[in-house]
Amino acid sequence: MPYNTKSFSQYLDDHRERFLDEFGQFIGQISVAADKRGIPAMADLVVERFRQLGAEVTPYPTPGSPIVYAEIGPEDAGRTLLIYNHYDVQPEDPVELWDSDPFEMVIRDGLIYGRGTSDDKGELLSRIQAVEAWLKTQGDLPVRIKWVVEGEEEIGSVHLNAWVSEHADMLTADGILWEGGGYDEKKRPIMGMGCKGIAYFELRCKGANQDLHSSYAPLVPNPAWRLVWALSTLKDPNENIILDGYMAHVAPLTEEEWDAIDAFPMEFEAMRARWGLDQWLNGVTDHDARRRYLSMPTITICGFESGYTGQGSKTVLPAEAMVKLDFRLVHNVTPQLAQDLLRKHLDRRGFTDISITFLGGEGPAKSPMDSLPARAALAAGRDTWDKDPVIMPWFAGSGPMHSLSTVLDIPVIFAGATWHPNARMHSPNENILVKDYFDSMRFTAAFITRFAADKA
Amino acid sequence: MPYNTKSFSQYLDDHRERFLDEFGQFIGQISVAADKRGIPAMADLVVERFRQLGAEVTPYPTPGSPIVYAEIGPEDAGRTLLIYNHYDVQPEDPVELWDSDPFEMVIRDGLIYGRGTSDDKGELLSRIQAVEAWLKTQGDLPVRIKWVVEGEEEIGSVHLNAWVSEHADMLTADGILWEGGGYDEKKRPIMGMGCKGIAYFELRCKGANQDLHSSYAPLVPNPAWRLVWALSTLKDPNENIILDGYMAHVAPLTEEEWDAIDAFPMEFEAMRARWGLDQWLNGVTDHDARRRYLSMPTITICGFESGYTGQGSKTVLPAEAMVKLDFRLVHNVTPQLAQDLLRKHLDRRGFTDISITFLGGEGPAKSPMDSLPARAALAAGRDTWDKDPVIMPWFAGSGPMHSLSTVLDIPVIFAGATWHPNARMHSPNENILVKDYFDSMRFTAAFITRFAADKA
Repeated sequence: MPYNTKSFSQYLDDHRERFLDEFGQFIGQISVAADKRGIPAMADLVVERFRQLGAEVTPYPTPGSPIVYAEIGPEDAGRTLLIYNHYDVQPEDPVELWDSDPFEMVIRDGLIYGRGTSDDKGELLSRIQAVEAWLKTQGDLPVRIKWVVEGEEEIGSVHLNAWVSEHADMLTADGILWEGGGYDEKKRPIMGMGCKGIAYFELRCKGANQDLHSSYAPLVPNPAWRLVWALSTLKDPNENIILDGYMAHVAPLTEEEWDAIDAFPMEFEAMRARWGLDQWLNGVTDHDARRRYLSMPTITICGFESGYTGQGSKTVLPAEAMVKLDFRLVHNVTPQLAQDLLRKHLDRRGFTDISITFLGGEGPAKSPMDSLPARAALAAGRDTWDKDPVIMPWFAGSGPMHSLSTVLDIPVIFAGATWHPNARMHSPNENILVKDYFDSMRFTAAFITRFAADKA
Repeated sequence: MPYNTKSFSQYLDDHRERFLDEFGQFIGQISVAADKRGIPAMADLVVERFRQLGAEVTPYPTPGSPIVYAEIGPEDAGRTLLIYNHYDVQPEDPVELWDSDPFEMVIRDGLIYGRGTSDDKGELLSRIQAVEAWLKTQGDLPVRIKWVVEGEEEIGSVHLNAWVSEHADMLTADGILWEGGGYDEKKRPIMGMGCKGIAYFELRCKGANQDLHSSYAPLVPNPAWRLVWALSTLKDPNENIILDGYMAHVAPLTEEEWDAIDAFPMEFEAMRARWGLDQWLNGVTDHDARRRYLSMPTITICGFESGYTGQGSKTVLPAEAMVKLDFRLVHNVTPQLAQDLLRKHLDRRGFTDISITFLGGEGPAKSPMDSLPARAALAAGRDTWDKDPVIMPWFAGSGPMHSLSTVLDIPVIFAGATWHPNARMHSPNENILVKDYFDSMRFTAAFITRFAADKA
């Protein structure tokens, strides 16, 4: 074993209550990037925790949420590890479906509930606590750690790109340990080397300057119908994207990449059971479902609102309609390309009355499967769980890996995270296992060691 | 002049403050049929007001709102007039766009503001107050009046049909004075002999049993997309209804009917200016706009809701989506026919996962243009305003005329109402003119006289 696991684990046991108390403080501090609730206070909490750790920490203001940047470990350590996490969370609604207050940490039956437990406060704090435990039980860190903790991941990391460009010199590193990943249905740890990109748009259409009685429908444009017609030209009922020119930009995958996808284990039956589904979308086989999950670009209606949506009926011709769309991007589609194609597509069909607002996004990312952080994660995974992690060639979700990994040309890995298949990330009753919270600390310690010692 | 207008008007002047106070009580009592707020209390208020008038009044319970039925006037009067009004109102949202509390009557610059001022509490109460003024200044009523005041007009009069069938014997009459109508842009009073029908549906679709992270979009059905695709098969972007078989049921109009439509004056330019529109839907001429307004069947998206609709972005794959649709019906389409065709249309395209809930409706209605109530309204209009009312062959809105007029075979008229082109009916800041409130009483008195005395 590459570090003294006994003293390390003893420290986790001795400080278990305090570590969980600190986690409760992190969950208790609302930090919803979508409507900016609690963001400054949460950034302060993160800064303070890094100070307690003994890190050099700087909160960088942005036009949105501050980016908290911390460095710790010997400057002459030889290798530098960049860690990425985020302190913002998804909105809590529909709040009525939570069994307890989303912003109060509750431990029940070995699970820790609260918004942000899985995504991403648990991982952020457990890694900080892991470094504390390391320093108290192992001595100096064997690597210099640079930590980027942003507060806008859930709204597309809208200010990270610019910040990274501005501070590229400061951010040099030999590898990046990313957020996310977790465990699969059979409790195998997951690691991976990239992610899809994302572009999030809000489309709006206006009709008359006021809601009207619906008897005027023959005379006055209905913005809800306008959006319905426009949307129906983007994707057909068989789920094919028919946005003009879009699919031509999608890079084909190599045979190796398809093989890596096919080898990735997914517990399809359990997923369907958990979500109450008889079959996958379009009735595809599990084999094809996996390929679609990891390779398919998507356009998702995340929200639609117009007119009267309360109980019963109201005969109203709405003055406005709004739809929120997210595009999950695969190589070589960027948010800018998606927006340009969408605008042209709508204009070509006369939907010039529909406005498009870009609410954030980032390109897709891919790192080689045998990079330094990949080798370290594989070894650290074996150290921590005594089994091989499963390899996900890239994550079907999105994150700003592109900004740090692709732009700065540093290999990236995600591994050691606390997510599990019933974690209800982005949904009511988000949770992680208490056990996984502390295993994340063990993985972090092992990863630091392997990353420092790797000889390949 | 057919009645003593001097003593009648003097009574209105003497009791002006009390009459407006009573109106304030009616507006102040919330009575939103869509979510049932305040309905029983409002029904009680109406019953009490009829008692004060000296009417025999009975509140009939229904599975929804009570129907208040009142009779007043000599049983041997020779002629019987049925009056229809309703005490329920539209929901007040978007409440933030009101300049004052929707449920507090506010008088400002000669206008009376509040939810229900125009639709339909002003008309209901001013007619009651008119009968009071008549009894105090003219003696016995020259007609027997039967008054049907329901509390579910705004949600499609869901229980009126059954109640009318049950009490058909009680409801015999020589003519019906309906609610609605009002003034056009040039302050000419409007009268008419029918209305379009309506069918209000809520369509719902469900995907997974919970909101999911949108990265699962390649695997899991998105109910918002399902509704978008289904809706786009009902009406094309040129506003043509393409619901299978629907248009074949629409009765063509006679040349006389087209002439009546073409003769109906509408102040199109003022309407466009008020609503902030450069042109009518599809860019049609004013001549065609009038024809479309009065003759076209419509399918209106009144509301659409799915997923996250708050500020900023949330990358969610929604578990549910809901759309509210109203069909404005023309001859010979009934709500049942519309529902049957819609169900078959969706099923035929594989949208069996979309449920349809009928939230209320009624067939269209038409009465002859020279009936007893039509003659009385024309004469009473001249009596009251010293000018000819404009004739709207039928109302582009809807109401349960079908239940009373068509089913009971009693000619119907709407006339003498308080609506005006900036009344913002169904919208924030609903209002009527103070003057029109009292003119409604004068019209009611004149109409009663003309209805009783008509010799044709």
